[in-house]
Amino acid sequence: MLNFSFANPTKIHFGEQQIALIKNEIPADAKVLVTYGGGSIKSNGVYDQVVDALSEHTWFEFAGIEPNPSYQTCMKAVALVKEQHIDYILAVGGGSVADGSKFIAAAANYDGEPWDILSKGGEIKSAIALGVVLTLPATGSESNGNSVVSNLDTHEKLAFASPLVLPRFAVLDPAVTFSLPNRQVANGIVDAFVHTMEQYLTYDVGAKLQDRFAEGILMTLIEEGPKAFSEPDNYQVRANIMWSATMALNGLIGAGVPQDWATHMIGHEMTAMYGLDHAQTLAIVLPRMMAAQKETKRGKILQYAERVLGLDISDKDAAIEQAITATEGFFHSVNMPTRLSDYQLGEEVADKIVQQLERHGMTAIGERGQVTLDTSHAILLASV
Amino acid sequence: MLNFSFANPTKIHFGEQQIALIKNEIPADAKVLVTYGGGSIKSNGVYDQVVDALSEHTWFEFAGIEPNPSYQTCMKAVALVKEQHIDYILAVGGGSVADGSKFIAAAANYDGEPWDILSKGGEIKSAIALGVVLTLPATGSESNGNSVVSNLDTHEKLAFASPLVLPRFAVLDPAVTFSLPNRQVANGIVDAFVHTMEQYLTYDVGAKLQDRFAEGILMTLIEEGPKAFSEPDNYQVRANIMWSATMALNGLIGAGVPQDWATHMIGHEMTAMYGLDHAQTLAIVLPRMMAAQKETKRGKILQYAERVLGLDISDKDAAIEQAITATEGFFHSVNMPTRLSDYQLGEEVADKIVQQLERHGMTAIGERGQVTLDTSHAILLASV
Repeated sequence: MLNFSFANPTKIHFGEQQIALIKNEIPADAKVLVTYGGGSIKSNGVYDQVVDALSEHTWFEFAGIEPNPSYQTCMKAVALVKEQHIDYILAVGGGSVADGSKFIAAAANYDGEPWDILSKGGEIKSAIALGVVLTLPATGSESNGNSVVSNLDTHEKLAFASPLVLPRFAVLDPAVTFSLPNRQVANGIVDAFVHTMEQYLTYDVGAKLQDRFAEGILMTLIEEGPKAFSEPDNYQVRANIMWSATMALNGLIGAGVPQDWATHMIGHEMTAMYGLDHAQTLAIVLPRMMAAQKETKRGKILQYAERVLGLDISDKDAAIEQAITATEGFFHSVNMPTRLSDYQLGEEVADKIVQQLERHGMTAIGERGQVTLDTSHAILLASV
Repeated sequence: MLNFSFANPTKIHFGEQQIALIKNEIPADAKVLVTYGGGSIKSNGVYDQVVDALSEHTWFEFAGIEPNPSYQTCMKAVALVKEQHIDYILAVGGGSVADGSKFIAAAANYDGEPWDILSKGGEIKSAIALGVVLTLPATGSESNGNSVVSNLDTHEKLAFASPLVLPRFAVLDPAVTFSLPNRQVANGIVDAFVHTMEQYLTYDVGAKLQDRFAEGILMTLIEEGPKAFSEPDNYQVRANIMWSATMALNGLIGAGVPQDWATHMIGHEMTAMYGLDHAQTLAIVLPRMMAAQKETKRGKILQYAERVLGLDISDKDAAIEQAITATEGFFHSVNMPTRLSDYQLGEEVADKIVQQLERHGMTAIGERGQVTLDTSHAILLASV
């Protein structure tokens, strides 16, 4: 196990009818900005529950944070925060709304050009307090300090992280996910799965408990994921997916272990360049990443094959191939395509994405820096 | 999954040489009281590391917090806290030092007779800030708000809990556990194991991830526990045990599931009455508790048998018996006796302990209140 420091103070309220608790979580005298996306929260009852919970607060609202939240949209919210002297942001939505709201929270207090937070690692010295009502289990953004924001002008998708934008609280009501479109359900499941793999499928450092926890998340998603489609009204299925997605990226399973994230780095470029959903890119890249890394990740792929997939690993090479096939099969089981050609994209993608990776300094990614630009190129060619 | 609220803000610094980090965790202007036990920290180097880390702080020390910390000893520390206007307590030791220090932290600010915190559920409105340097992985006290304190005069062992006594930070350096006596190593492993079982071996509420996490802790302890004796210098073994013990009782695996704790309730009375180590009592009671509850806990015992112990469960009744035997065998594998007679105790224990349980209102314990005084009596008789 590697040395680590870990803390996650986000207070989680999990379960049905928990949205009402935000009343007590936000100081009574706070001026609140409710941020959300395209308006689905108005048709599924979440908006009404939030309005009820804030009946004694002074609050404003900002709609229109898009999937892959844009710098341009977020900066409009920053103007509103400054104008109304907002001191609490309540993000109501999925990872995009949470991520965008984190940027708003940091940018509003930033001394300088806020884009620098993303492009130059500009130091965040303070941020507006943030709470989240989660409507789409996927990114874990509701209890971590990470954010990814896109620039529509430059086609860049960049990340920042700060404990200052960690949500103070998050409400997770699995019942609000019943109304999600299938595409978003699939995206969330795949996203949580790949987050876990990025922190698990590296190399052994003797961190047995972290491995077991990661395997627990993977097994739960494999078991419950397809049921979100075959039993769409099953509350327990939604609850298990929702809690798995949070635990996949709240820092716990990544504490004390090496981390990869090469699949994400390639995927981010694909979303920025071609507009694919984040999870769609991950499902395309991961199986080919596993194949390309089957020697450097050999031990962990075999452990995954045996413990998570229940495969017989006596023939190790065969087991590795089966594990890769089964992983792609899991994505298909939640109705997630796994090929560039499923999106009418072809070999041209490889050159384009590798150019972007190079531009962003992603020339040696993965847990050992072993994924070179050539490797990324080969992975993308194999993904057509 | 049941509804839950969960937060655990304790910041964990895990790994070798992390004790130095306390310098930055405690405010520079704080007046610190370093609390510890019998002095083993002076022979294993921990005390020196703490002294180095606090070289720029103003600090005092209070030694002599005993295993099963006593109200009487803690109140002496409370007097020192008041006299010196202490505003930060640094507990250096195992669960007993942490638990005692939590009581000191709460009692120093308590308006009234501090024993009422334990005996009458007296409300804690504030507490002195607390940090922990953990030397014995066992109770999880380093990152929870629970404390158990004994009254030497009345032979009572009572608990309280408050988020206000949750440690602000905890340093976990597995290397400091190399010098622990075998008895304490065994105690810690068994304690962490039974903490996990108390939150796992109940009944199914569909909380698949919590189950998988609990199973991960149990499997890790079964795998690594015996190695702490056969490979006493193996750092990774110590690290896995230490992290497992923290995760066993930091609130995470118990969030959203029913909890039992009947084994603990009986065990606490045994420690108060006969002076057995806490974990010694748990190892005596749990196998008989499982046997007595094999119908109410049937589903979960079978899940445990299959997933944790790898048993064939096609003959269910046989698998349950094997699981109970294997659990007792695990305790033996870490050199922990499992019978009252191992401590020269006999049938007389049953009447005595049941009297104490009745006195403390423990007449219907367990996850469904199914463990009556008669059941507790039978469990103790069967444990001779």
